[in-house]
Amino acid sequence: MPAYANRVKNMKDTALYMRGLFGGMTNPDIISFGGGAPAPQALPADIIQSIACEVLASDNRGREALQYSSTFGLKDLRQAIVSELLAPAGVTADIDNVLIVTGGLETMNLLCQVYIDPGDVILIESPAFIHCIDIFNMFEARSIPCQCDDIGLVMEDVEAKIKQYRPKMIYTVPTFHNPTGKTLTAQRRKRLAELGSEYDVIILEDDPYRDIRYSGEALPTIKSFDKTGHTVMANSFSKMFSPGSRLGYAVAEKDLILLLMDAKIATNSHSSSLDQVLCAEFFKRGYYQEHHKKICDLYRQRRDIMLECIEKFFPQGTKYTRPDGGFYIWVKLPDGLDSEKLLVEAEKQNISYLAGKSWFVGEENVGSNTMRLNFANAKEENIRYGIETLGKLFAEKRK
Amino acid sequence: MPAYANRVKNMKDTALYMRGLFGGMTNPDIISFGGGAPAPQALPADIIQSIACEVLASDNRGREALQYSSTFGLKDLRQAIVSELLAPAGVTADIDNVLIVTGGLETMNLLCQVYIDPGDVILIESPAFIHCIDIFNMFEARSIPCQCDDIGLVMEDVEAKIKQYRPKMIYTVPTFHNPTGKTLTAQRRKRLAELGSEYDVIILEDDPYRDIRYSGEALPTIKSFDKTGHTVMANSFSKMFSPGSRLGYAVAEKDLILLLMDAKIATNSHSSSLDQVLCAEFFKRGYYQEHHKKICDLYRQRRDIMLECIEKFFPQGTKYTRPDGGFYIWVKLPDGLDSEKLLVEAEKQNISYLAGKSWFVGEENVGSNTMRLNFANAKEENIRYGIETLGKLFAEKRK
Repeated sequence: MPAYANRVKNMKDTALYMRGLFGGMTNPDIISFGGGAPAPQALPADIIQSIACEVLASDNRGREALQYSSTFGLKDLRQAIVSELLAPAGVTADIDNVLIVTGGLETMNLLCQVYIDPGDVILIESPAFIHCIDIFNMFEARSIPCQCDDIGLVMEDVEAKIKQYRPKMIYTVPTFHNPTGKTLTAQRRKRLAELGSEYDVIILEDDPYRDIRYSGEALPTIKSFDKTGHTVMANSFSKMFSPGSRLGYAVAEKDLILLLMDAKIATNSHSSSLDQVLCAEFFKRGYYQEHHKKICDLYRQRRDIMLECIEKFFPQGTKYTRPDGGFYIWVKLPDGLDSEKLLVEAEKQNISYLAGKSWFVGEENVGSNTMRLNFANAKEENIRYGIETLGKLFAEKRK
Repeated sequence: MPAYANRVKNMKDTALYMRGLFGGMTNPDIISFGGGAPAPQALPADIIQSIACEVLASDNRGREALQYSSTFGLKDLRQAIVSELLAPAGVTADIDNVLIVTGGLETMNLLCQVYIDPGDVILIESPAFIHCIDIFNMFEARSIPCQCDDIGLVMEDVEAKIKQYRPKMIYTVPTFHNPTGKTLTAQRRKRLAELGSEYDVIILEDDPYRDIRYSGEALPTIKSFDKTGHTVMANSFSKMFSPGSRLGYAVAEKDLILLLMDAKIATNSHSSSLDQVLCAEFFKRGYYQEHHKKICDLYRQRRDIMLECIEKFFPQGTKYTRPDGGFYIWVKLPDGLDSEKLLVEAEKQNISYLAGKSWFVGEENVGSNTMRLNFANAKEENIRYGIETLGKLFAEKRK
C-alpha cells in the first residue's frame, strides 16, 4: 500500500489513546466515571420524540429535515443560538457570525484547516483536553503547554510563551475545564482576549460546559472582551440537548465564518438536517429553559454527592477541585499513588475513571497521581458505592 | 489576523465555486436541473416519521439514538450495508470493513487525511466531480485529469499517467458518473483494480448512484476485482434514503478502516446517532426494497421524458448521454454555444442547469459548450416546459 501521509505518524500516540477512550465508553456493566457522556436521564427523549413525530409529518418542515440544507446551518437554529445562548453570554452576534458544525469538536478541525500548516504552534493548557490535541496532531501542529494554577491559564506564562513560540493559536476551555473543572476568572479572560489582539494570535475559546452551571455567578466569555475578531468560540449541543445529534457551533467574524464554511464543504457539506430541525424546534418551542433547569438540578446533586464521598473516602492528602458546573472533578492523589496502575485494579472491581497522566501533553513525569472523575453520568448509589470502593483501594495501595 | 494555512490559497478557486453551487440550490422559484438533490417525492418521509416516533419512544433504542456512539458507526447499520448492499454487489466484507461517515464525501476527506501530503498526485476523470476536487485541493494534492471516452476512463491513458505522475490515488465515479452519466465497463473496472495493485495506487471508487439503476444490467464493482486491498469504496445514503441524514460509508481493509476511524475521531468523533438508528431500522424493517423500486420508477420516467424532450427541442448537432441510472444527462451543445453565457439567459427565464466548463479541472478551453442536467429533481411538466424553453433559447442564440 502507498505510504501514509506525514500526519498519520504525527497523530499516532494520541490516536491510539483516543481509540481506547472511545472503545471503553459503552460497557454497561461498569460504573464509569471515565467518559464525558451526559446522563441518560438528562437526554430530553420525550421532548425530541414529540417534536420528531410532529415535524416529520409536516410537508415543509419534514422535507427540510430530510433534504440537503445549507452549509451554514439552519437559519432558525442559528437564530436561537444568537438570541438564547450568545446574547445572555454578552456576545453580540448575528446569524452570519454562526456556523453549525457536526459535533462541538468540528470547529477545532475546521479552524485548523484554515490556519494551521505543519509546524505551526498552538499553546494549550496543562493538562489539556486530549481530544483536541489529537486534532492538532493530525494537522501537524506543535502543541506547547502553558502553566495553569487553580484558576486556569497563568497569563504571564502565556505571554512569555507567545513571545518565545509565536503561536498561531491559543486553545482553552475556560469554563469548568476538561479535565480539571477549573474556571478562568473574568480578569484573565479579558487579558487573554487582549493578548490575542496585541500579538495577533487566535484565541480558541472552547466552552461546551459554560451553560451547565450549578453554583456561583456566570462569567463573561473571552469573546465578549474581543475587540479585533481574534477570539473564536466553539460550543456544542452535546451537553444540553443530545450528543448523538452531533451538533455544535462556531462563532467568529463573518469573513472567517466563510472560510470555515469552505472547509466544511470540503469535509461533510453540512450537518444533519433532521438533527438541526429538532434542535431548532427544541429552542423555538421553549423547551430549553425548563430542560436546562432539570439537568442542572440533577447534576448539582451528583456533584455534591461525589464531593462529599471523595472527602469522606479518599486518602488523607488527596486534593481535588470543586467545580461550579460542568461534568468533572480533578483529583490529585497523595504522592506515590499511580492512577494508571490503580485503574487496572479498579476495573477488576468494575469501576473506571480517567487517569490524568496522558492529558499532560508535551510534559514528562507529571500527573501520574491525577485522575478525572465524571460525576454527571452515574446514579447516586453508584457514586456512593464507586467512590467508597475507590477510596478503599487507594488507601490499601498506599500502605 | 494570522496568516491562513497554505491550503486556503490552494482551494480558493474551487471553494468559491462551491459556495456558489450551495448558495443556488434552494431557490424554490426556479426550475432547477442544476443541483444534485433527490426529488422531494423520493424522500421516504412517512417511513422515517413512523420509525422515529416509535424508536424515540423506546427506552433503549431511543437513548442509543440520542447518546454518543462508536466512531465505527452502529453495528446494525454496518450489518445492513454488508448484507443488503455489498453482498449483492459482489463485495465480500464484514462489518469491520465498514466505517459510517457523515455524508458520502467524508470518505474522500478521511482518505486524504490518511494518504495525501501536499504535492501528492491524484488522477481524476475529465470532467470530474468538482466537489471532490475541492476536497483534494484542500489537501494540497495535484489533481491530474485522465482521458475519458463514451464509457469513462481510458485505461491506456490512466496507465501512462500512473507512470508519468506516480499518483497516490485514482479517483473515479464509475457508475452513472457525475457529471456525465457514463458507466465504466466491467472489463475496465477489472483493469483499474489491477492497475491499483500493480502500481501500488489507491483506487477510490465513489459509487453513490450505483443502486439507482433504471435499465440495463448491474455491473460488478471495481472493489470486487480487488485482490490486494488497494480499492476503497465510498458510498452514500443521500440518494436512496435521505441526504439530510448526512450518512455514507467507506469500505476498505480493516487496517485502513482503523486509520480512517482515527481521522474521523479527529474530525467529528462519529456520525449522528439518530440518523444512524433511523437508517438501520429502514433496512431492518424491510422498507428498502419497496422504496428502492418506487424511486427507480419515478426517476426512470423523468429520465425518459427528459431524453425525449432533449431529442425534440435541443438544436441539431447536440450530443448527450443516455444514462441507465443516476441523476444526470450530460449535454454537448453544437460548437459555438457557450453554456455559461446561456445560463445567464436561462436564469432570467427561471430555469437553471449546471454549466460544464468548471468541471474540467486542470484543462483549458474545454467544455464551454457542455452542461449537466439533473432529471431526478424536477416534475414531469417542469421537465417538459424547462427543456423546451432551453431548446428555444439555444436555437435562438445559435442564429
